[in-house]
Amino acid sequence: MYTIGIDVGGMSIKAGIVKDGKISHKMVKETDANGGLDKLVEDITDLVNDIVSQNNMDINNIGTIGIGFPGVVTNKGTVTCVNLALNNAPIVNKIKEKFENTRVEVGNDANVAALAEYAYGSMKGYDTGIMITLGTGIGGGVVINGKLITGANGIGAEIGHTMISTNYYDCNCGNNGCFETFCSATAIIRYTQKLVEEGRETAIREACQNNIGNITAKMVFDAYREKDEVALEVITRFKKYLAMGLGNIVNFLDPQVISIGGGVSNASDIVLEGLTEQVKEYLPFKETEIADIVIAKFKNDAGILGASAL
Amino acid sequence: MYTIGIDVGGMSIKAGIVKDGKISHKMVKETDANGGLDKLVEDITDLVNDIVSQNNMDINNIGTIGIGFPGVVTNKGTVTCVNLALNNAPIVNKIKEKFENTRVEVGNDANVAALAEYAYGSMKGYDTGIMITLGTGIGGGVVINGKLITGANGIGAEIGHTMISTNYYDCNCGNNGCFETFCSATAIIRYTQKLVEEGRETAIREACQNNIGNITAKMVFDAYREKDEVALEVITRFKKYLAMGLGNIVNFLDPQVISIGGGVSNASDIVLEGLTEQVKEYLPFKETEIADIVIAKFKNDAGILGASAL
Repeated sequence: MYTIGIDVGGMSIKAGIVKDGKISHKMVKETDANGGLDKLVEDITDLVNDIVSQNNMDINNIGTIGIGFPGVVTNKGTVTCVNLALNNAPIVNKIKEKFENTRVEVGNDANVAALAEYAYGSMKGYDTGIMITLGTGIGGGVVINGKLITGANGIGAEIGHTMISTNYYDCNCGNNGCFETFCSATAIIRYTQKLVEEGRETAIREACQNNIGNITAKMVFDAYREKDEVALEVITRFKKYLAMGLGNIVNFLDPQVISIGGGVSNASDIVLEGLTEQVKEYLPFKETEIADIVIAKFKNDAGILGASAL
Repeated sequence: MYTIGIDVGGMSIKAGIVKDGKISHKMVKETDANGGLDKLVEDITDLVNDIVSQNNMDINNIGTIGIGFPGVVTNKGTVTCVNLALNNAPIVNKIKEKFENTRVEVGNDANVAALAEYAYGSMKGYDTGIMITLGTGIGGGVVINGKLITGANGIGAEIGHTMISTNYYDCNCGNNGCFETFCSATAIIRYTQKLVEEGRETAIREACQNNIGNITAKMVFDAYREKDEVALEVITRFKKYLAMGLGNIVNFLDPQVISIGGGVSNASDIVLEGLTEQVKEYLPFKETEIADIVIAKFKNDAGILGASAL
């Protein structure tokens, strides 16, 4: 039996046919962010029908349609996302109306990515693991005893909004000290911009062509490799708070594995270097084994793969 | 079948015979903190034999001996506690040598208290709950899908040492910003002492007989009821950080219930007043249902009851 994984994003909706953790065929459609639930259901339905017929299959060959969604997902199959103009929208029931004999599941996108890593990737073989994705924000997914923990009200694993310290700027959520204001790609970029604006000498100034709006996390990691002092300060700060955030995860759940994904994890050597020892500094029991800290396996396909595993 | 719950503390070892969540008989022995593993095993063995014979029972009537322990407990049944001079000591195997036909289990004391609340108390009927005990420090226990989560390396649910902000003093663990430096009884006392030392007018000065070493959390809550300004400031600060700490729990795991125990929870009306709304302020999705926040049912008996349920 095959499954179809659907990855709903702010820009595009991706669909893939999956069997045994391998994607055999992919299709993409632009997201109609203002279309509301009916348009989203129509787009997903079209994608499913197209990908099935292009593969000379029948919908009866598909056991499950799994949907990864960028927002709050309740246990009742409803979804909320301000950017997609959806508020407690019953997406699962609507899709089920179209494909009556197929199981339909929906999960939060960060949770779904964790499931992909657990089922097929960097957390395979472990029972209990936490995934964090360091991107524009920080997403989280928790797998305990082989089960994805989505929470009682669909608001779980918002690890990016757990508070870990005080910061020099507030989070979009209105609070101060959220993990993602220290360790997301955005946080790295903002702190670099701050130091550049303060007039600090750095090769990043040239890399961004004197326009701090062009600064990327990759530029900062590249400059770090060249021992640029500003990059050194930014990355040292990033690593300190990353260790604190992971320390909180260990103190809280003491998992077997922590997997780091998202764009920032592309600089895996810099991210992982000495990290385990740094994390231990934030534990009350410093002489202990802790979770394996690994880099996520899947990049763009995590959404499709994880959704298919729902 | 009966079980015996053993609650090992820094001052005393308590034992109780338990059936269906009720303690029928209790015994207490002073803890020999310097006695090491052999003395502790001897004391527990004596307690078990005495309580069994005093009840005209046979050890074969006892299905399980459960031990709650104040320190790190590994999945291999070894325990570590600096205050009891124990380092990775194989307590389960040693007790098993004495009672060959009886199941022996050991768990961390805060985890065990959570289990008592889950099995018999304030979290009964829920699948997923977090307990925090606000006492000298802050302990934590996590139950997910009906299972106590002890962690991969026995260091889980150290919620008191998760970092939530920056504080004016460091934690005993060497870090700054631990939850317990804001919301334990100790934290309430310290902040009150600080304000009194700064010369602030307060009724607490009289209550402690001008000796800040005498200040208790109860004095502060009592003064709060009388609208004492210093108490108001201390409790307002305490509630703010309590909401942040619980917000982190909701953001992380979104449980069905959070139970608050420990001495501070005796002022349950003050602790709970408006707390749910305060916690929501620290979530990215503020318009949502969150966990029920309740007060723990068991006080001194939590250790025996929880250990018996291991």
